[in-house]
Amino acid sequence: MELTQADRQHLDKSKQDTGSLGNTDVGLKYDSGRVAHDFSCIHSKDLLPAEDGEEATKHFLQELVNILLAYINKSLKRSSKVLDFHYPHQLKEGLEGFSLELPDQPDNLEQLLVDCRDTLKYGVKTGHPRFFNQLSTGLDIIGLAGEWLTSTANTNMFTYEISPVFILMEEVVLRKMHSIIGWPEEDGDGIFCPGGTMSNLYSVLLARFHLFPVVKTHGMSAIPRLALFTSAHVHNLIIFTQINTTFWFLSVRGKMISSELNSSIETAKSKGLVPFYVNATAGTTVYGAFDPLNEIADICKHHGLWMHVDAAWGGGLLLSNKHRVKLQGIERAHSVTWNPHKMMGVPLQCSTILVKKKGLLQECNQLCAEYLFQPDKHYDVSYDTGDKSIQCGRHVDVFKLWLMWKAKPEHSNVCFWYLPKRLQSILPSPERDRELHMVAPKIKTKMMEEGFTMIGYQPLEDKVNFFRCVFSNPATQREDVDFLIDEIVRLGCEL
Amino acid sequence: MELTQADRQHLDKSKQDTGSLGNTDVGLKYDSGRVAHDFSCIHSKDLLPAEDGEEATKHFLQELVNILLAYINKSLKRSSKVLDFHYPHQLKEGLEGFSLELPDQPDNLEQLLVDCRDTLKYGVKTGHPRFFNQLSTGLDIIGLAGEWLTSTANTNMFTYEISPVFILMEEVVLRKMHSIIGWPEEDGDGIFCPGGTMSNLYSVLLARFHLFPVVKTHGMSAIPRLALFTSAHVHNLIIFTQINTTFWFLSVRGKMISSELNSSIETAKSKGLVPFYVNATAGTTVYGAFDPLNEIADICKHHGLWMHVDAAWGGGLLLSNKHRVKLQGIERAHSVTWNPHKMMGVPLQCSTILVKKKGLLQECNQLCAEYLFQPDKHYDVSYDTGDKSIQCGRHVDVFKLWLMWKAKPEHSNVCFWYLPKRLQSILPSPERDRELHMVAPKIKTKMMEEGFTMIGYQPLEDKVNFFRCVFSNPATQREDVDFLIDEIVRLGCEL
Repeated sequence: MELTQADRQHLDKSKQDTGSLGNTDVGLKYDSGRVAHDFSCIHSKDLLPAEDGEEATKHFLQELVNILLAYINKSLKRSSKVLDFHYPHQLKEGLEGFSLELPDQPDNLEQLLVDCRDTLKYGVKTGHPRFFNQLSTGLDIIGLAGEWLTSTANTNMFTYEISPVFILMEEVVLRKMHSIIGWPEEDGDGIFCPGGTMSNLYSVLLARFHLFPVVKTHGMSAIPRLALFTSAHVHNLIIFTQINTTFWFLSVRGKMISSELNSSIETAKSKGLVPFYVNATAGTTVYGAFDPLNEIADICKHHGLWMHVDAAWGGGLLLSNKHRVKLQGIERAHSVTWNPHKMMGVPLQCSTILVKKKGLLQECNQLCAEYLFQPDKHYDVSYDTGDKSIQCGRHVDVFKLWLMWKAKPEHSNVCFWYLPKRLQSILPSPERDRELHMVAPKIKTKMMEEGFTMIGYQPLEDKVNFFRCVFSNPATQREDVDFLIDEIVRLGCEL
Repeated sequence: MELTQADRQHLDKSKQDTGSLGNTDVGLKYDSGRVAHDFSCIHSKDLLPAEDGEEATKHFLQELVNILLAYINKSLKRSSKVLDFHYPHQLKEGLEGFSLELPDQPDNLEQLLVDCRDTLKYGVKTGHPRFFNQLSTGLDIIGLAGEWLTSTANTNMFTYEISPVFILMEEVVLRKMHSIIGWPEEDGDGIFCPGGTMSNLYSVLLARFHLFPVVKTHGMSAIPRLALFTSAHVHNLIIFTQINTTFWFLSVRGKMISSELNSSIETAKSKGLVPFYVNATAGTTVYGAFDPLNEIADICKHHGLWMHVDAAWGGGLLLSNKHRVKLQGIERAHSVTWNPHKMMGVPLQCSTILVKKKGLLQECNQLCAEYLFQPDKHYDVSYDTGDKSIQCGRHVDVFKLWLMWKAKPEHSNVCFWYLPKRLQSILPSPERDRELHMVAPKIKTKMMEEGFTMIGYQPLEDKVNFFRCVFSNPATQREDVDFLIDEIVRLGCEL
């Protein structure tokens, strides 16, 4: 398929947009003397494994890398916007020739490269120093390199047979995380999985199986009604494990009150329920609050309950000598969720479930399906992690973390309201709250339409909409926080 | 940290191993005239976002790409091995200086690049033309490009706000898949998720919620005991959804027998259970068998059951005019699992759950947590998919598929025993089966130790260990299959 004149103009324009590392820089140089490659006559079928596909593949991937390098540079420049906001209908209509629709005939590689540029152009630069919107921010170059290698290796974590190196790296990294938590060397097990929800799901499955192994063969109807306990400010992670369990929400200012936990457990017992599991949170999503882990551990011990710590967000603080005190008592947990893709800045996805008791994961989840795991293999099949996992294919999430850990073996949420001038003189009241509730959405609307910075807002319980500033982006400096505050004042002072 | 002499020799050796696209080719040229970059004095902290980190970042990533290109080329060469097998203890001891342990001081970038080379060197080349071992094989260059871009964008599928382009691409691709299944235009919903287990888990949650919405607020104890039905040869996908449900295994030669399904449903009812869900399989893991979908749809309709089709493996055949007949009746399903990372050759992970009834996913899974999804946003929040998903952070899996689909909008398991000479003259008997059972593991042991090709084996029901040859790798040609058979004969004839 030939490009139309309009397409080509669009392409030329996009090329100009790629910045200092676009075709005018690297693209022309790496092939000393030769002009940039013409991709308009090349199609996917001309790339490897096609015979003679080697050159085309090299040029195509190198051109892509030029586009990605230009994007990375632009993302980190304070002079560029965080986002170039468009409403859904605008993007769907096709902006400047960028069509999301799937064609009937194969596009050529030139068109695909244009699509790549446009995809980045209309996206959000999550690595920008002024992006404060999400718990996962920043773009770590070592982590990125790890991810490019992982996708090139394109294997899965099913068995040692097909992932020998990654399986052993997983073991090494998990062992390191166990020792950081403070578990004795003879303890410690775990697995990487696709996010905090899955990690927490594992913990509930483990706790239930540990208390009532019969659940594996006879299902929930063979065991009594269970009760699990979690704070109200927990991330939505825990909710979907609710099957046949009862929830108890306890909290004030984002922390669990241990005396209330204790009385809730007693109440549950008196109702004939069997308490079995407490989820303590180390770093809640909105306030970044830490539950009192030692007090909770005492209660769990007293009642014989499984203690899980959801440290998806806060786990990264364990690496800080100064801040790990916030997680004191975590070593008493039976299981821990810790997502390196949050505070540790590893590219998403990178999440772990860590289990104190060895062997339990395997016992709880194994199916002994010989057609999946052949016990008569020639190596030690205890390295085949597939039977620990509830997944079959499992993406390799460990390598980027391993590589980052080799590169830097050393290492919060601020929530606030902005009161426009008009509201500053009014005393706190339901009327003022009603007005205040509308301030953050209005500021964010303008902020996204302009695209220079990005921060999240939300209400929580009795508190009306407030901003939450997340600090986990290594590109962010003091001046960026000043910029954010100035922007909020500029956009909001007249509201 | 300075490299030791031994490290440096190892590095030199590794560089030589990178093949024709190593430093001797691209690495030296792209910087016209300058010698290859010295990474031994550069550390992670010198890369972006460090001031003046632009050049170092460019050189580091380009050197990485040289390593990856060399790997891709080598993977596709029949003269190279599929794997260079080592036992776990050998890799753990550190082969030729390749240490998996995490250091106490930051490694320099030269060491990290050596680690990247070694990681690939001791891994399995899943894109090799003679890799037949897994359902996910091959390395599609367009898909790879998509994955590199995705990891550079490093965002997540939570909201339109942070993934405007990817969220709309997901809508476009899902709509395309609905139309290929054959659902009317007004129907169709779905979501990308991290693998077939999750897709099937979604389908059970949906079916249960559809029948008993009360389960969402009151848990399993508020509803009767359920029964779900699936064939015995189903992938382990379905097993973990078993909570409070009953399993019925029905099969012969890998296909569900619909008359037996019907009587099993009647039996379940007579025992006081409530049948609610049938999982039909389109492409089983081992035999690649397809259940009779139309017959199953008739039974589901008669009993008012939810019909799910697990087409994780077989879904790709829907793109073939010749073969889609095997999935006739799939348009009558309530939900479908379809993993483009299997037969369609998209890099892992890329999996979907497709749902006929619009809105059900959201109704079933939404938490209405205002602190996560602010209803007072300035755009149409129905594009915020976070409330459809049981995850919070969700990796972007759609882009590589979208890009591949733009690049090529056009598009089987063979199981066998090898009988060594000695067994060929013996009539089938339990004695012969015992011997035959040990043949495949022995051949595979030698095969992996030599590393020239790779195929899986397993027993299934009354059948002793047999080989399963998977054809989904676009690099594989007729001669590679001949090679595989010759190898099996060579390695096995004397057994």
